[in-house]
Amino acid sequence: MLGLKKEFMPEWTSQAPLDRSYRSIFKWGAPNGFKHPNKRLYRLMKETFHMTDDDFRKKKEEGNETVTCPTPVNMPENAVQIFRNMVGEENVNTDGYARVRFSNGKTMEEAMMLRKGETGQVADIVIHPRNKKDVQEVIRYCNDKKIPVYTYGGGSSVNFGFKCVKGGVSLVMSTHMNRVLEVNETNQTATVDAGIMGPAYEDSLNRAPEIHHAKRRYTCGHFPQSFEYSTVGGWILALGSGQQSSYYGDACDIVLSQEYVTPTGMFKTLDFPGTATGPKVNDIMMGSEGAFGILVSVTLKIFRYMPENRRRFSFIFPSWEKAVDATREISQGEFGKPSVFRISDPEETDVALKLYGVEGTLLDKLMDYKGFRKMERCLYIGHTEGEKGFSRNVLKNVRRICKKYSAMSLTGYPVKKWEHSRYQDPYMREDLHDFGVIIDTLETGVTWDNLHRLHQGVRCFAKKRPETIIMTHASHFYPQGTNLYFIFIGRFSGIDDYRSFQKGLIDNILEFGGSLSHHHGVGKMIGPWMENHLGKAQMDVLRALKNHFDPNHILNPGGTLGLD
Amino acid sequence: MLGLKKEFMPEWTSQAPLDRSYRSIFKWGAPNGFKHPNKRLYRLMKETFHMTDDDFRKKKEEGNETVTCPTPVNMPENAVQIFRNMVGEENVNTDGYARVRFSNGKTMEEAMMLRKGETGQVADIVIHPRNKKDVQEVIRYCNDKKIPVYTYGGGSSVNFGFKCVKGGVSLVMSTHMNRVLEVNETNQTATVDAGIMGPAYEDSLNRAPEIHHAKRRYTCGHFPQSFEYSTVGGWILALGSGQQSSYYGDACDIVLSQEYVTPTGMFKTLDFPGTATGPKVNDIMMGSEGAFGILVSVTLKIFRYMPENRRRFSFIFPSWEKAVDATREISQGEFGKPSVFRISDPEETDVALKLYGVEGTLLDKLMDYKGFRKMERCLYIGHTEGEKGFSRNVLKNVRRICKKYSAMSLTGYPVKKWEHSRYQDPYMREDLHDFGVIIDTLETGVTWDNLHRLHQGVRCFAKKRPETIIMTHASHFYPQGTNLYFIFIGRFSGIDDYRSFQKGLIDNILEFGGSLSHHHGVGKMIGPWMENHLGKAQMDVLRALKNHFDPNHILNPGGTLGLD
Repeated sequence: MLGLKKEFMPEWTSQAPLDRSYRSIFKWGAPNGFKHPNKRLYRLMKETFHMTDDDFRKKKEEGNETVTCPTPVNMPENAVQIFRNMVGEENVNTDGYARVRFSNGKTMEEAMMLRKGETGQVADIVIHPRNKKDVQEVIRYCNDKKIPVYTYGGGSSVNFGFKCVKGGVSLVMSTHMNRVLEVNETNQTATVDAGIMGPAYEDSLNRAPEIHHAKRRYTCGHFPQSFEYSTVGGWILALGSGQQSSYYGDACDIVLSQEYVTPTGMFKTLDFPGTATGPKVNDIMMGSEGAFGILVSVTLKIFRYMPENRRRFSFIFPSWEKAVDATREISQGEFGKPSVFRISDPEETDVALKLYGVEGTLLDKLMDYKGFRKMERCLYIGHTEGEKGFSRNVLKNVRRICKKYSAMSLTGYPVKKWEHSRYQDPYMREDLHDFGVIIDTLETGVTWDNLHRLHQGVRCFAKKRPETIIMTHASHFYPQGTNLYFIFIGRFSGIDDYRSFQKGLIDNILEFGGSLSHHHGVGKMIGPWMENHLGKAQMDVLRALKNHFDPNHILNPGGTLGLD
Repeated sequence: MLGLKKEFMPEWTSQAPLDRSYRSIFKWGAPNGFKHPNKRLYRLMKETFHMTDDDFRKKKEEGNETVTCPTPVNMPENAVQIFRNMVGEENVNTDGYARVRFSNGKTMEEAMMLRKGETGQVADIVIHPRNKKDVQEVIRYCNDKKIPVYTYGGGSSVNFGFKCVKGGVSLVMSTHMNRVLEVNETNQTATVDAGIMGPAYEDSLNRAPEIHHAKRRYTCGHFPQSFEYSTVGGWILALGSGQQSSYYGDACDIVLSQEYVTPTGMFKTLDFPGTATGPKVNDIMMGSEGAFGILVSVTLKIFRYMPENRRRFSFIFPSWEKAVDATREISQGEFGKPSVFRISDPEETDVALKLYGVEGTLLDKLMDYKGFRKMERCLYIGHTEGEKGFSRNVLKNVRRICKKYSAMSLTGYPVKKWEHSRYQDPYMREDLHDFGVIIDTLETGVTWDNLHRLHQGVRCFAKKRPETIIMTHASHFYPQGTNLYFIFIGRFSGIDDYRSFQKGLIDNILEFGGSLSHHHGVGKMIGPWMENHLGKAQMDVLRALKNHFDPNHILNPGGTLGLD
């Protein structure tokens, strides 16, 4: 181990991006948040991509320059003034930096462009509404004048969800509309502004006794990897799933009611836990990605916060097949499900064991000795939750089933390591990108009986590309199936090369029977595949709803959900 | 007890209704199925309604006459012939009996009319499609000719769900389209024709090893009180909840995908367990009550059948408040929920203890002795389900919480009695009606914080009417609330008297903040309240969908969901 100290390691960037720089826009997560590749991962990259230490000495296109936005504000000055009067001078930006910042999400494509100083089409104006009345007035005026409106929540979209491809307004919900309006302990619900960020919301629930005079502490139950920079509104509108969705449910499962402002009017859906009064408008609005209306407030189900009942586990399986069979049996076992619940395929397991510091340890040797072979073995990590007896019983059943499928326990250590950096892994993408290496993801939903075919089909396509890492995990489990989350790492000659590989992956996901998206939403990136995926009849239903809510097509125009 | 034998008891009808009689149409449940009021219930009725044995000697308007239908078939003979060619001669009925039978559901109002020999508006023609191609052709033709189409499943609607108020076609889905198409054990799903009846479906799953060569036995998890005469399609289209919904979920929770024939086209929704591809058409169709399209097939989630793990329990609480507090704590406890899960208010508890044979026993005396007072005490019955350890842990927590709220265990006996006649209780309605006594129900969903206000508000209204029994239970539990199920018994001077009381109850449910329906759907009965309940903006969404799917308004016209 001592020998490692002498190894060259790149000088990963560990400083917050410069103020008003391109990097301050495309950098994932907190400005001061970093997670760097460790030595084993660095070595893997050099090996895989046939790169040398020299390739990691000089960073390229870091995006440290100050943003300049060549696109003029394409809006009459009197309109700008009207918006200023509407929401207050200080809540309207027309400067280039704000317009670029609030028009860009976190796709790799946006990062590639911004690193080159290319800003593309951006919003003409950025508006920070203070309350739902502001939203109403903005929407009324924009509908009247046919000005496009894009809704910006936390800015973490990875599919051009709010990308302002037609200019117009970027409506930033998280600046002011970010309060917890009520915690109702009797009903176990919280009502919030849609623009509240995950951490603020969770903190408010965890400290409910101090903040809301509640008897207990609560949790929101929704922890996507983008948690730090995602809003409650974004969770719902893009149909997100948190890392603990196998226990708490997906975003759509934790919503009791919603309030919307649309060009055709305003409404709040019913907040009954059960009702049989026709198709539920509450369901109809979820997943509408800002194309049907602006979500202004939400009443969510909340859950008792009992981290003391968590039971952590990690297992290694001899093969992917056995890991899948075991987790299927766990998902269908009628004893409840673990909360964190994740299996990695052999390629991801290999990287994960490097990342979590298991590779090269005694544990690693023990695995080898016991016949869990590198590039065959699969990691399963998780923790259980809920009432004490429930949590214990889930773990008991997990252990029983893992044993049945020849798994070996790796103790709770790997899952603790994972928890520690659960939101940080994507931070590595900037480090890699600084040296021309791209890491990106695509994900899909699948029924159990099609899992292997889909996994192999997509891997087979990806592996045709030389020097490409493709890792897969499943992390959201249902009795009927799960998701497959593909992470690819490679060097791309440019945006076209990257786009063509991404397109091939999406084509293959569809060809092998996966869903177009499991929890990232559709946005404008995979919109073009929607009609093929859903079929014309179902797309026509979405179009009919679009025309009903937004007859002038001012909301999130330019390909969202494949609607235009 | 010997003394009771001498008491007069009415001669309840215990013979199947005469062939082609009115009674054969309005009688609830199986023609040969009966459940008669026992002596204690009979005495309660005499007391409450100031009736004597003499009032129970002569039955009135039994509906034993053969049906005559005075309404002529309002359809050209060539149209009838076209339908015959389409689906086969034997699958088209134009005789009066069939037209009346397949135009009537199980509301008390329909029973009152039919007992008088009044058939009202009925379908012109009854069609029994053999497959989805038949359905397609019927819909295409009817859309072309603007002929109304009503979909008949099991016939158990209690709100004029399929009532053929505009004549036209009654499309009977249960005659032929009643097969299990596939049991997929890997995905734990079953695909069925939408017209399959509950018992046939459940039997097919329970005997999956014998019938489908499956490794395990399964259950559908959905057991509404109308189970015997309800179809899978009806469960979904009216948003039903089964008696075990607290564990298995409501009908909408167990649907993976659906296939529809609509006037604007045919489609099958995606069958992924999780997907983030925009608003889900699968959700949009549920609850559409035959007004958007004809549901032809469904893929449902199925569950492992493990009745051996059931743990039965019954408790008596000193008060309704304590019963509600305890069951709320159980629902929010994060240990899973009991499967059968039902609390009765004091008035229903009183009747239930009579019905289940507890009144007058040693147990009854013990309750009295321990301070659980008549007309204050509340019954809680249920059973747990799932994997053995899970089921045991739920029961352990139920016991702990019941004890905390001063409840006394009544053993598993009352729940066993309840299970024995779980589908039979409504059979008593014909016995009562034969002597002029009406029993009927209305139900609503409610959040916990509004439960008592709603319960008291509705009771207060009902109790203003002299000589009226109003019993309430909650039987579908969520962490955020439950349902309230009101059963009223009274003598009504006629349909107008009955209607006016029913209208008052619905008005009061709304006034005190309940949902318009928890699991009976809307139909044409409570359609007139829909706009007030949902608000115009949400009704407009339903109307937009209606216009999209059914631009000529041929599907279930005449007030369904308040759409026309």
